Amino acid sequence: MSTESITVHGYSVSGNCHKVRLLLEQLGRDYRWVEVDSPNGATRTPDYLAKNPNGKVPMLERGDGRVLTESNAILCWLAEGSAYLPADAWQRAQALSWLFFEQYSHEPYVAVARFIRGWTPPDSPRRADLPRLIERGEQALAVMERHLQQADWFTGDDYGVADIALFAYTHCAADGGFELSKFPRVSTWLSRVSATPGFIPMPAVADDVAERLANS
Amino acid sequence: MSTESITVHGYSVSGNCHKVRLLLEQLGRDYRWVEVDSPNGATRTPDYLAKNPNGKVPMLERGDGRVLTESNAILCWLAEGSAYLPADAWQRAQALSWLFFEQYSHEPYVAVARFIRGWTPPDSPRRADLPRLIERGEQALAVMERHLQQADWFTGDDYGVADIALFAYTHCAADGGFELSKFPRVSTWLSRVSATPGFIPMPAVADDVAERLANS
Repeated sequence: MSTESITVHGYSVSGNCHKVRLLLEQLGRDYRWVEVDSPNGATRTPDYLAKNPNGKVPMLERGDGRVLTESNAILCWLAEGSAYLPADAWQRAQALSWLFFEQYSHEPYVAVARFIRGWTPPDSPRRADLPRLIERGEQALAVMERHLQQADWFTGDDYGVADIALFAYTHCAADGGFELSKFPRVSTWLSRVSATPGFIPMPAVADDVAERLANS
Repeated sequence: MSTESITVHGYSVSGNCHKVRLLLEQLGRDYRWVEVDSPNGATRTPDYLAKNPNGKVPMLERGDGRVLTESNAILCWLAEGSAYLPADAWQRAQALSWLFFEQYSHEPYVAVARFIRGWTPPDSPRRADLPRLIERGEQALAVMERHLQQADWFTGDDYGVADIALFAYTHCAADGGFELSKFPRVSTWLSRVSATPGFIPMPAVADDVAERLANS
């Protein structure tokens, strides 16, 4: 499998997309990256919707054209048989539990707050949602903080897919208005993730996004 | 594993909880069910939060006290090695993709609309969210309808975990104000799921909930 041609369609500064790039780099896999300008409608074109009717990035495409969507499903498929996905069924189930936690209880608050602050105009009505998003996102970060009282990682005994998924938007939570200093174990864990072999940081956001974030 | 004592903490008329019961019944597993009155705060007690800091149902508890949370992670763990989870890695990844789709693009709209109509007072400010929830939930149902143009099931060649997860709130989408007649393939698929061996329906909601749903 490791020599198969793989293409990732993604928006580089999306945490969901960066997850996939980070794992591919850490696995040492060859891949092609096709940049998709999702904030400006590039996932809503007829061509894109023909491949992914749900109109989201990332999307993995194999050499024969078959596609796989949903960032965390892509992580699991890529990590199969590697140290990044536990072989033990119970540990794998715990990693999966964190992957679902990330998509249901974390990303809709931590990532969406960042999106609203960085990608919507200063007068967007969506900004009224920010206090609720901060409150719910802090609940998710508190659940992570509590887990880290007893464990170093979210995937099992070692770093893996659940750490990659949770890192994606936690490391840039300040963009959404979160104070990570309230969560010291989360902050230390972020440093541990950044020190794993083959780690690559998420690229910087574009200047206009950086400016909106700075002024939010 | 199949003789191990298993307890499910769940609220019977929650789709997320019914998923777990449905699979356990279809697997023919013995289990104990502990009813948790989650709409009235039973997942927010200190005892419950000690087991699941995220304060949600369902929660699976093993004989030795270890717990597993997140409905779709529980489905995967229970289904491991059975016909309900594909053995082929690519098919399993596709099933996982639908499980993440269900939790991110379907449940937050289809299930939440049902919750608001059935479990909040008629003057709840949350009812103002309903038009947006209906719009987004219909997008999810349209993605399902499109998949069913080319396939009978969501899990792979056969019925399995992704069908169970998507069935959970789709079959009662009318409670949320959705018109399933707009999605004929989804409707036919619901009938196919209901005809699978060992299928059990979700219990009826309490009278007060039924009355609010009828008057919404």
